[in-house]
Amino acid sequence: MPDRLGAPLPAPLFNRLAIIGLGLIGSSLARAARARNLAAAIVAIDGSETVRDRVTQLNLADTITGDTANGVQDADFIILCVPVGACGSVAEAMRPGLAKGAIISDVGSVKGSIVAQIAPHLPANVHFVPAHPVAGTEYSGPDAGFSTLFLNRWCILTPPEGTDPAATAKVRAFWEAIGSNVEEMSPAHHDRVLAITSHLPHLIAYNIVGTAADLEEVTQSEVIKFSAGGFRDFTRIAASDPTMWRDVFLNNKDAVLEMLGRFTEDLSALQRAIRWGDGEALFTHFTRTRAVRRSIIDLGQEVDAPDFGRRTKPDDETQ
Amino acid sequence: MPDRLGAPLPAPLFNRLAIIGLGLIGSSLARAARARNLAAAIVAIDGSETVRDRVTQLNLADTITGDTANGVQDADFIILCVPVGACGSVAEAMRPGLAKGAIISDVGSVKGSIVAQIAPHLPANVHFVPAHPVAGTEYSGPDAGFSTLFLNRWCILTPPEGTDPAATAKVRAFWEAIGSNVEEMSPAHHDRVLAITSHLPHLIAYNIVGTAADLEEVTQSEVIKFSAGGFRDFTRIAASDPTMWRDVFLNNKDAVLEMLGRFTEDLSALQRAIRWGDGEALFTHFTRTRAVRRSIIDLGQEVDAPDFGRRTKPDDETQ
Repeated sequence: MPDRLGAPLPAPLFNRLAIIGLGLIGSSLARAARARNLAAAIVAIDGSETVRDRVTQLNLADTITGDTANGVQDADFIILCVPVGACGSVAEAMRPGLAKGAIISDVGSVKGSIVAQIAPHLPANVHFVPAHPVAGTEYSGPDAGFSTLFLNRWCILTPPEGTDPAATAKVRAFWEAIGSNVEEMSPAHHDRVLAITSHLPHLIAYNIVGTAADLEEVTQSEVIKFSAGGFRDFTRIAASDPTMWRDVFLNNKDAVLEMLGRFTEDLSALQRAIRWGDGEALFTHFTRTRAVRRSIIDLGQEVDAPDFGRRTKPDDETQ
Repeated sequence: MPDRLGAPLPAPLFNRLAIIGLGLIGSSLARAARARNLAAAIVAIDGSETVRDRVTQLNLADTITGDTANGVQDADFIILCVPVGACGSVAEAMRPGLAKGAIISDVGSVKGSIVAQIAPHLPANVHFVPAHPVAGTEYSGPDAGFSTLFLNRWCILTPPEGTDPAATAKVRAFWEAIGSNVEEMSPAHHDRVLAITSHLPHLIAYNIVGTAADLEEVTQSEVIKFSAGGFRDFTRIAASDPTMWRDVFLNNKDAVLEMLGRFTEDLSALQRAIRWGDGEALFTHFTRTRAVRRSIIDLGQEVDAPDFGRRTKPDDETQ
């Protein structure tokens, strides 16, 4: 697996790239685009003065502004990197500044709702190619970003029917240039796939951390001390950005509720096996789940070091 | 946080240490005990010829045998490192060989059931100090072990009332010598604490990996590809040893079912918030879970690198 971006391109893919929202994802895109020379100029647009100050200090963009309509002027590629719930109002705000032929994209974790929010605000003479990079960490803000965040990760494009193939190809080239594998699917299918691979895992992690915090008899300090038994793994994704995740659940309700229904059914079956002492059912279930992790490791989507490589074996263990 | 065991002790704590079951935990104990000179001789006892052959090749013990009663003869410290469900029959098997004054311990993830299984087989002239090191990885077998597995992890002792304090002190000294922090509590309290910090997280992880594998519309290949959205975190503990975990659930039924009941109640509340679009309830819940992770990191039970440190920021990201 490569751990470095390639060399800067000899000629940029875009003339002027506007990134709206300079959090973990937006600031990582700014870093990656600059490292690979993907845009002749980068404009950073953010409503927060604190964020704009950090972006200035980190020198992540050529132009930094809080004015969305102004910021997107003359941009040929605009990427919305704001929480899913803010996409509609940002699209409305940028509309007066949009240049003819501009390509609009985003990085939202939900796609059906994003298309419904953004599309009505766009004039006919621009292109809309929604995108979702399946990458991130549990940290937030412009300081948390880094240029290799998207390396060897998948980015899913969901261009609406009738989208200019040339626009889709340019967005694909952008993501490939920062190291991603690109796949295309419909917004509806995306939302179901991500409901199981991302949204439900986050919901469950948030939930168990809350359940543990509410126990009367087991103290918070005991939960923390003995968390290495498995619990601490869940706290990582339960430390993710609350605004982002609130919006994901509000905007992918149907798919999340369906996957949650399946999860709960399956959990009831395990619960019954425990109550009735059905060791064979438990053993059979626990055996088949091992293979899934092996496949994820083989595909380069996970480290194969034990314990996520938190502690590697010392060198002198090769006796 | 130290990442190395200390130097070997000038004089061993025990004369003859017998380890029964040379899997991840047993083989790590053999390595750690030898590295710190905690026993003048180490006896490895395992019913599997394959395991015994590997233990020989890895040179983990001074004596290696498949005969439990013979193996424990003259041992002053015996640690059972077998699945929880096997402890009763192993205790019965070792009884004829037990030396007067020997200290018997174990490493089981459940304590109430272990005490009930082992205690009836022990003669009055030995000491029984049950133990549970809260440490491990998702790998199994003698090759998976390493000497620093217990470093900076907690080990919980649950000595029954009336246990000789000198025996408990020796077991404590052993665990401290291999880097663990030691705590004492009752078996019943242990089983409730671990039900939330370890058993329930494993059950949920096993469950969601099964749910994902059963989807008709989302393919297995899609689940694997897009697992970096959160799902892959769950696959690690769902890759843990099936026999061990079957036995945990069969032997800690009451506490697991109670914690599962609380988890399901809480999940229903989140489900309702999603169905009714209650963004404020979701945001509030997602905010309070962030602090728990911070405490775990501060206590040295977790790395603070983003994404478990799977990918560190490249050096050139300090711009």
